[in-house]
Amino acid sequence: MLMITIALDVLGGDNAPASNIDGALMALKKSPEVAVKLFGPQAMIEEELKKRGESSSERLMIVDAPEFISQEEHPVAAISEKKESSMVKGLMAVRSGEADAFVSAGSSGAVLAGGQLKVGRIKGALRTPLATPIPTSNGVSLLLDCGANVDARPEWICQFARMGQLYAKKLLGVNEPSIKLVNIGSEAEKGNALIKATKPMIEKLEGLNYQGYIETREIPEGKADVIVTDAWTGNAILKLYEGTALTLIKMIKTAITSDTKSKIGALLIKDSLKGTLKLFDTSKYGGAPLLGLRGLVVKCHGNSKAPEIAAGILQCMDFVKAGINEELSEALQKDNELIKALKEEQEKG
Amino acid sequence: MLMITIALDVLGGDNAPASNIDGALMALKKSPEVAVKLFGPQAMIEEELKKRGESSSERLMIVDAPEFISQEEHPVAAISEKKESSMVKGLMAVRSGEADAFVSAGSSGAVLAGGQLKVGRIKGALRTPLATPIPTSNGVSLLLDCGANVDARPEWICQFARMGQLYAKKLLGVNEPSIKLVNIGSEAEKGNALIKATKPMIEKLEGLNYQGYIETREIPEGKADVIVTDAWTGNAILKLYEGTALTLIKMIKTAITSDTKSKIGALLIKDSLKGTLKLFDTSKYGGAPLLGLRGLVVKCHGNSKAPEIAAGILQCMDFVKAGINEELSEALQKDNELIKALKEEQEKG
Repeated sequence: MLMITIALDVLGGDNAPASNIDGALMALKKSPEVAVKLFGPQAMIEEELKKRGESSSERLMIVDAPEFISQEEHPVAAISEKKESSMVKGLMAVRSGEADAFVSAGSSGAVLAGGQLKVGRIKGALRTPLATPIPTSNGVSLLLDCGANVDARPEWICQFARMGQLYAKKLLGVNEPSIKLVNIGSEAEKGNALIKATKPMIEKLEGLNYQGYIETREIPEGKADVIVTDAWTGNAILKLYEGTALTLIKMIKTAITSDTKSKIGALLIKDSLKGTLKLFDTSKYGGAPLLGLRGLVVKCHGNSKAPEIAAGILQCMDFVKAGINEELSEALQKDNELIKALKEEQEKG
Repeated sequence: MLMITIALDVLGGDNAPASNIDGALMALKKSPEVAVKLFGPQAMIEEELKKRGESSSERLMIVDAPEFISQEEHPVAAISEKKESSMVKGLMAVRSGEADAFVSAGSSGAVLAGGQLKVGRIKGALRTPLATPIPTSNGVSLLLDCGANVDARPEWICQFARMGQLYAKKLLGVNEPSIKLVNIGSEAEKGNALIKATKPMIEKLEGLNYQGYIETREIPEGKADVIVTDAWTGNAILKLYEGTALTLIKMIKTAITSDTKSKIGALLIKDSLKGTLKLFDTSKYGGAPLLGLRGLVVKCHGNSKAPEIAAGILQCMDFVKAGINEELSEALQKDNELIKALKEEQEKG
C-alpha cells in the first residue's frame, strides 16, 4: 500500500491547535493510506494528543517547531527569518521529500510566499497560483489566481489556464473543463490592458477548451469549470462572493425570525433551506492548492474546523496519486515556446 | 419656480420605449418643477403618447432623433458616427444648455463615452467616473468608478474620492462621508502597484474623511459611505454583487417552494422576507451619475422599469439644485496642485 505523508501546520488558523489536531485524527481514521506529521511545539502537541487519549505513532509523528508565523507579520520576512516555525519546517519537509504535501490554515501571505521560496516551482512554471474551488448554483468552479500574483502578466494568466485545466480534469474529474477569462463585459473590445494582451495568447494554446470571457455576474451561475484572472481580481471576487452570501443569509435569518408568524414559517422551511445554503458552503471543498510547485501545498480557510482540515489532508492524497506535476511541467514548457513565438511574431509585425 | 429640464433617451434600455415614456409621465406627475424632453423617433413617441391619452406639452417636449445606438456597437465609434441618435442629441442638449441633465438606460459604454466626448469635463477633472449607489445591510454605499476608466492612474482614484465625497454629502445627505479604498487585504503592505501608488496621495488630500482600506468582503456590510477603486475592479464588484444576490435569492425561492411543508412556511415568512430582499434591490436608487461633467448624465440600469426611470429623472433635480460642479471643480484643482507637489517631492527624494 502506498502511504502518503502530509505535513500539517498545527499552529495555523483561527481554531488552532485543537481543530488541526482533531482534523488530523479524523483523516487518519478515514484513510489507512495517510500518515500525518504534526508541525508545532512538541510539548503542546503531546499534551493535546494526551487530552484526546492519543499519542504519536508511525502514522502520527510530531516534529518540534516552536516558532509561529502570525497573520500580522510580513510574509516574506517571516518566512526567511523564522526557520523554526511550523510553516517553514513543514514546507522544508516537502522540499526534502520527507512529506508529500503541506497543509496549513495559517497566514495566506506566508503560505504563498513560503511555497514559492521554500518548495520551489516546477520547470516551466512562471508563478504558482492559488486555485480556489468556489460553489455555484450548479456545482463548483475553480477560480485562479486567488494568491499573491497581483500585477500579473499575460503569460501568467495563460499558465493559470493550463494549470486549472489539468487540476480540474485530474482532480475534480471534469472531462474537458471549460475555461473562461474574467472580463467586465462580453464584447470583444472590452477589458483592461492585461486582458487585451492575454486574449490573443490564451486563444492559441493547444488542447485548451477556452470559451472566451466570463462576466463576474455569471460566476454564481457556474458558467465555467475553470475561471482565470489575476490575483488582484481573484481575491476581490472570492472575498466579495463570501461576504455577500454571508450577509444575505444573515439578513434572511434575521428576517424570518423577526415575529411569531415568521418563526413558525422558518421552522417549516428549515430543512429545504439548509440543503440549499449548504451548496454555498465553501468549507466542504477542503483547501485551495497552490499549483506549479515541486510538491503540494494546500491552504485551508483560516476559520477551518476539524472536518475541513481533514478534507484538506485527504485531498492531497488524490493529488499525489494523480501525479500531475510531470504532465503539467511538460505542458507549461510547450506553452512557453508557443507564447515566445507569438510574442516574436507580434514584435516583428 | 425653478424649472429643470431633463433630456430622456426614449430608445435606451431593455424595456424601451414603453417604460421610458411611462417613467417620464410618472416623474411629471410627481414634481411640478420638472420638464422632460423626449429624444427618439418623433412619430413613434407621438403614437406612444397617444396610446396613453397624452400629447406633447410645454413640460413634455419631443425632439426627433431617429437613430439608435445598440449595446453591440462600439461606443466611441457609435457616438461619433450616429449624430441623429437619441443618445448623441440628448447629450448635445446638455452641452448647449437646452437641458440640465441627460438620462439613459441604454448602452453603458455609449453613455460613458458620450458623456466625456459630447458634454465634456469640468475644469480640473481628469476623468469622469460612474458613481453607483449599492445597497448594503445598513443602507447604501456609493461605489466609484463603475465606468470605463480601466487601467487607472493614482491621481484618478484620488479624484474619485473627492467626487464621491461631495456627491455623498450634497446629494445623499451624509455628513462627513467615510471614504475607503478597495484592497485585497487590510495590511499596509498589501495591494497592487496602483494601490501602493494611490495610498500616499489619497491620505494627504485635505478635508477628506479617508479611513484606509476596505476588503471586498466588508462591502455588503456597509463599512464605508464612499468606496473608491478603478473601473475594472468597480465593474467586477458591481456585477458580482448583483449576480450573487440574484442567484442566492433564486435558489432560496426554489428551495422554499420545493415541497408542501416548505410552501406553507414560505407563505408565513413572505412578508418579513420581502422587506429584507427589498433592501438589496438596486433599482430604488434610480440611476448612477457620471461625475465631473459640465452638466449631468445619469445612467439607469438596463432593465429599468418606469419607476426607476422616474427616479432617475427626479434625482437630477437634486443634483442640479445642489449645484456641486463649481465647488467640485475648485476642490479638484486644489487637489491637483497638492498631488503635483507630492509627485515632485517623490521624484526629488
